[in-house]
Amino acid sequence: MDALRTETGAVSHDERLDRLALIAVHVGLGLRPGQELVMTAPVEALPLARRITEHAYRAGASLVTTLFEDEEATLARFRLAPDESFDKTNGWLYDAMAAAYRSGAARLAIRGDDPALLAGQDPDKVARANRARSQAYRPALELITQYAINWSIVAYATPAWAKAVFPDEPEHRAVALLWDAIFAASRVDGADPVASWREHNRSLQARCDLLNAKQYRTLHFKGEGTDLQVGLADGHLWLGGSTAAQNGIVCNPNIPTEEVFTTPHKDRVEGTVRSTKPLSYQGTLIEDIAVRFEGGRIVEARARTGEEVLRKVLETDDGARRLGEVALVPYSSPISRCGLLFFNTLFDENAASHIALGQAYSNCLQGGLAMSAEELAARGANSSLIHIDWMIGSQSIDIDGITAAGEAEAVMRSGEWVS
Amino acid sequence: MDALRTETGAVSHDERLDRLALIAVHVGLGLRPGQELVMTAPVEALPLARRITEHAYRAGASLVTTLFEDEEATLARFRLAPDESFDKTNGWLYDAMAAAYRSGAARLAIRGDDPALLAGQDPDKVARANRARSQAYRPALELITQYAINWSIVAYATPAWAKAVFPDEPEHRAVALLWDAIFAASRVDGADPVASWREHNRSLQARCDLLNAKQYRTLHFKGEGTDLQVGLADGHLWLGGSTAAQNGIVCNPNIPTEEVFTTPHKDRVEGTVRSTKPLSYQGTLIEDIAVRFEGGRIVEARARTGEEVLRKVLETDDGARRLGEVALVPYSSPISRCGLLFFNTLFDENAASHIALGQAYSNCLQGGLAMSAEELAARGANSSLIHIDWMIGSQSIDIDGITAAGEAEAVMRSGEWVS
Repeated sequence: MDALRTETGAVSHDERLDRLALIAVHVGLGLRPGQELVMTAPVEALPLARRITEHAYRAGASLVTTLFEDEEATLARFRLAPDESFDKTNGWLYDAMAAAYRSGAARLAIRGDDPALLAGQDPDKVARANRARSQAYRPALELITQYAINWSIVAYATPAWAKAVFPDEPEHRAVALLWDAIFAASRVDGADPVASWREHNRSLQARCDLLNAKQYRTLHFKGEGTDLQVGLADGHLWLGGSTAAQNGIVCNPNIPTEEVFTTPHKDRVEGTVRSTKPLSYQGTLIEDIAVRFEGGRIVEARARTGEEVLRKVLETDDGARRLGEVALVPYSSPISRCGLLFFNTLFDENAASHIALGQAYSNCLQGGLAMSAEELAARGANSSLIHIDWMIGSQSIDIDGITAAGEAEAVMRSGEWVS
Repeated sequence: MDALRTETGAVSHDERLDRLALIAVHVGLGLRPGQELVMTAPVEALPLARRITEHAYRAGASLVTTLFEDEEATLARFRLAPDESFDKTNGWLYDAMAAAYRSGAARLAIRGDDPALLAGQDPDKVARANRARSQAYRPALELITQYAINWSIVAYATPAWAKAVFPDEPEHRAVALLWDAIFAASRVDGADPVASWREHNRSLQARCDLLNAKQYRTLHFKGEGTDLQVGLADGHLWLGGSTAAQNGIVCNPNIPTEEVFTTPHKDRVEGTVRSTKPLSYQGTLIEDIAVRFEGGRIVEARARTGEEVLRKVLETDDGARRLGEVALVPYSSPISRCGLLFFNTLFDENAASHIALGQAYSNCLQGGLAMSAEELAARGANSSLIHIDWMIGSQSIDIDGITAAGEAEAVMRSGEWVS
């Protein structure tokens, strides 16, 4: 019997929110006593930010700083600000975050973005604002992608996001349904959520061990509209679930997570691939992406919606046209089985195998965290201002692993692990 | 007939909030097209922050960044954080604000503090946290006190503040009453609020012109329990209402404002003085302050409540025991006449003549903005990590100005201007 349940057997919303906060601090971050915490959150997520703050202080945090973000303010800018504004950004704030990380702070992001916030806005302004932001954010983002610190991301069911996922429900019902999905995927229920995360991490690690032993040279994705050879970086390392950061702290960077992932070779990707789920990028929905790679580089790109924003993204820098991540998720994963389209990468990437344009994670190479930018590039790790995941897996996709000897082995069939 | 009024003749709360936002941007900041804006606000003030953001973008702001503050998080720290935590601060964020100001950003603070937030907390922890924060904030605060940029402060009626001002009213009524007082003091009503601020600024400037022509050597405060000689700095300048910042922009640093103020001489203050209103300092209420000055320095200090916090404040640094500002406000000022005690310096300092412990404003000296720290000190301008105003005026206080020749002239009688 679970002592936390009410007399009717249901765990209250507040109790589940508190468990999510507990998981964020103890599983997501593995926050250490004396460590500072920098959190970003939508203003709507104040109730969760407060609970995370409390759990962080109970865990011995020296100071918790929450930088709240207001999408209404972002929208006001696009509606009212002068055109020159869109090449500017508040770099002083991103520099400050980088300074906090360099002095040892942990990093937690609460995400609850409206997937279509900027749908009606000028794609040129959207692209310029994103580019300015990406450049300013780079030093802080590198500390994250290089796991200089322990970091994590958790979700909050904001009304705008909930209405995007459940457009036919009244807002309060949409929010309640999205919360159910977030709590289930984040494994907050059950007698001991922290123990259940420990078990989940062990299972993802076992899958990584299998793939790391294989050291496939290439993954071959085949299915409706897709025939893609993804070369893997030399000495690539599959990761999934918890990860040891360079500061020695083990964290779970994504809550939820179902994927195992590694670094592709930036010059060895060939063929065509179609997206199997819509991508929500900085408030723009990009649907039915179809691209062709030659020598690792996207040479053709189309999309049914958001194509102009996609094109601008690809023009960010040379690395924006190349892959920085490939991730495998079985079609039967809990998030996939719930059947929802979240329009949010944190969830949708855990419902399907996917690839990411842009920056590679250097910890997905053996010894990668200690390598210089030149060494990482020599192994095939891509470099870019962006890192954008998009979904290419489904129950119609088969995946083969090609060994160093050139033999094909079945890795996934109809979206499921073969062994 | 005012076109903005409803059919019943009343201006709606939303319309008054929008006017306060308009005044903040156009009167408080004088925001320039292309200028960046850094705003701080309690999370409860989101509706005003959004309206200010809109008015700022309409005025041509390049980017508006709001740093929201959550008093619940501050309280959670005092309740739950380890003892070592209280000597730490998020200096990276204060450094970032200083960097933004150096690159030309304007600064707006929305204040709605709970005056008794930290009343039950350990005074030692409160003092240590304040000290760490003051040290980290110093570079940013200096850019503000030296008017390197245009800046302003406006108020928001948070529930906790409203309940402190109107303890016997239900919360919604307390909030409505506090809003009435804020809107009236901030001069949002009337056909043209911006024109009414222009007129108010002219009247304060006329008072400054009179006092500047006098160049009194000393102000002598006399009344119940007070017999205080406040020497004025050599070449002091009386200011009030709008001010030209060093970036050339004219701003109204306080909304509301009724005071005219100047820089006392840090070594030439003698005698005893009592506070005439409670002081709310960083969540602690300090009441019935009584201090004695010798050679500019406080040598005795008592208070009926909050004495321990007051003592810790005075120990901040040598300048914390000396005066950095003296300000004159007639007892008949609109904020005084409303008869409320706001437990908030922005309002209470405009209801009574007051003095401030700590840092002086260098623009209150002729040519002061161009002076080095040594030159400022030689004129008598005080330097400190703190700047804390407290009220010493009332209808029982008379003030004489002592001329360079040593003659006494009546400046205020029973709290009112003599001429």
